Amino acid sequence: MTLTLPAAAAIGDTLAQIGTPSLLIDLDVFDKNLRAMADLTAAHGMALRPHGKAHKTSAIALRQIAAGAVGICCQKLSEAYPFALAGVKSIHISNEFVGADKVAMAVALAQAVTLSVCVDSLTQVADLAHAAEQAGVNIAVFPEVDIGANRCGVSHSDDLLHLVEAVTRSPALRFAGIQAYHGGVQHIRSWAARRDAAGLGADRAATFVSALAARGMRCPVVTGGGTGSVEFDVRSGVFTEIQAGSYLFLDGDYQDNEWREVVRPQTSLYALSTIMSAGRPGHAVCDVGLKGLAVDSGLPRFVAYLPGEDGPVLSYVAANDEHGILRVTGSDECGTAFLEGRRILLPPGHCDPTINLHDAFICYRGDRVEAIWPIDARGLSR
Amino acid sequence: MTLTLPAAAAIGDTLAQIGTPSLLIDLDVFDKNLRAMADLTAAHGMALRPHGKAHKTSAIALRQIAAGAVGICCQKLSEAYPFALAGVKSIHISNEFVGADKVAMAVALAQAVTLSVCVDSLTQVADLAHAAEQAGVNIAVFPEVDIGANRCGVSHSDDLLHLVEAVTRSPALRFAGIQAYHGGVQHIRSWAARRDAAGLGADRAATFVSALAARGMRCPVVTGGGTGSVEFDVRSGVFTEIQAGSYLFLDGDYQDNEWREVVRPQTSLYALSTIMSAGRPGHAVCDVGLKGLAVDSGLPRFVAYLPGEDGPVLSYVAANDEHGILRVTGSDECGTAFLEGRRILLPPGHCDPTINLHDAFICYRGDRVEAIWPIDARGLSR
Repeated sequence: MTLTLPAAAAIGDTLAQIGTPSLLIDLDVFDKNLRAMADLTAAHGMALRPHGKAHKTSAIALRQIAAGAVGICCQKLSEAYPFALAGVKSIHISNEFVGADKVAMAVALAQAVTLSVCVDSLTQVADLAHAAEQAGVNIAVFPEVDIGANRCGVSHSDDLLHLVEAVTRSPALRFAGIQAYHGGVQHIRSWAARRDAAGLGADRAATFVSALAARGMRCPVVTGGGTGSVEFDVRSGVFTEIQAGSYLFLDGDYQDNEWREVVRPQTSLYALSTIMSAGRPGHAVCDVGLKGLAVDSGLPRFVAYLPGEDGPVLSYVAANDEHGILRVTGSDECGTAFLEGRRILLPPGHCDPTINLHDAFICYRGDRVEAIWPIDARGLSR
Repeated sequence: MTLTLPAAAAIGDTLAQIGTPSLLIDLDVFDKNLRAMADLTAAHGMALRPHGKAHKTSAIALRQIAAGAVGICCQKLSEAYPFALAGVKSIHISNEFVGADKVAMAVALAQAVTLSVCVDSLTQVADLAHAAEQAGVNIAVFPEVDIGANRCGVSHSDDLLHLVEAVTRSPALRFAGIQAYHGGVQHIRSWAARRDAAGLGADRAATFVSALAARGMRCPVVTGGGTGSVEFDVRSGVFTEIQAGSYLFLDGDYQDNEWREVVRPQTSLYALSTIMSAGRPGHAVCDVGLKGLAVDSGLPRFVAYLPGEDGPVLSYVAANDEHGILRVTGSDECGTAFLEGRRILLPPGHCDPTINLHDAFICYRGDRVEAIWPIDARGLSR
């Protein structure tokens, strides 16, 4: 049978030619966001190690590194494989992992790239040390400390000291610093409240560094921070490396933050969708729902027509599996049938899990497709 | 570089050997669910056309057809391609689509399988007729009628008549029946209230059939229904074909329904996860979050240990991107460190979008992996 799925887009296509639903990057905005974070961290002498979990795309990681990033973070070991295969030389696994299969992946990665990992228990250190020693590889280790997120990481400096001592005892492991990340701070809406919370987190991180210093242990790197807190983190005097990821895209959840001048990313990520049913007043249905847009951080905050096009105000009010329900304002009298076939741009509420639904970014500049980037770490969550 | 991602599982593995997070099917339960729906619809002389959007897996579609299904539904045209390539002969696209690229996909599919599609506007009929006539293919058409969902489909029988007339005028199209589906009814918790709502929907569908009969038009098929309403739909005297999908898995949202004796599917679908951080009292963290579990219909309703294992009661209380936060009941005194490395089974709140996150089902019977089924239509939403 000669049945072949056609590609969603080709280089040079107009936005009106792209198959929907698709995930789009506005490259003009994306480039500005990428540059601005590189400049901000460089201006403060900070290392930038952007988070690969946000985009899961080696083509983007290589662009971040070309703009000055020291390497990338991955949240999972399997996620790191496509980045390593694409030529990323320095990868930090910003998360704990447990089990012989996971430790074996860490050892395999450490044979290919400069690898660092997080730990928060002595068992994790022991298992990693054993496997790394057997394989004759060197792995840099960052104990994770809890600075208020109350998720992973040790809460007491005694526990940190025990981890550092255990790491130091293994000839295959190297204590490289600590990881201090507080996701909740990133999404505090008020700029001033976010500043204060970021300051509190940095103070907690400093306490751990001081406890190490009191034992004569130098902490070479403090890695953490994110898009929402970066302008405070770079001035904190504690962090040396920033793990921001969403700054490339500015998803809906970050749109809800109050931004000031230092950091002000703009929306570059959209689901492109077609209105495929418009039979009743005030109501239309588009072809992207839960399988193309993550809704855990809310629905798209706005609905845009293609550049240069116009129409009644649309609101995305509900996501079914494969349908998006649109409220149409100001067309109650004449019905909405004229909207059938129109294309719309929807900024996802949460970029990371939305990107994890798609196989490629279709990247456009102006009205034309300029590049198609495979999301090569999509679905790699082990 | 010789870096190859290891497989998550192999046939014969125990559950303790599977890489996590992974998506598991308990085959003993799955087989019972599959058989029960086939038996129920057969006993009432109804066609069963299960929904491929639920599982997106040709290996499952072929098992449904072997058990008596007449074919499958797909929600999207691109989704139908892997099913057609795997040998499914009859596919119904249970959804409207608009645009030249979509119509071209329908024509290509109609050259490979017996294809039917939904329409709810005259434009859709005209575009499809034109392309089908050009290509010399025959496509069966089901106008969709609105029986209360207020999503797609025509609301008035005059509009239905206009669609049927337009379909009939094209030599390439064939009026095959109507589609009448009401998703909201499926999830009404009370059995009696669900019965009443399903009855109301069936009455509305019957009104459309009567309006056609009054014009001398026979309606060969009324397709619709779902897992929550099927026991009422099969007795309605209106539906001739059932589109249920979730009955194979019984996700969390359906677990919340009240079930009686006629239909009583059991949970067969789980995310397998490992606890990878357990450093504080009453709290542990597992390795599956938003990227492995859809949370639009709530979090997993319960947390189970592996068969034969035991431990304190766990509740999955929050999903981060790659972390699941667990509340641990009854271990406040001694901490939770003993849980590190333990594996747990989590039934997804919503099966369809959860399955769309994974590349394969790892299917087990008892304690052993019996099969691995690629989710070959994953991500195909065009």
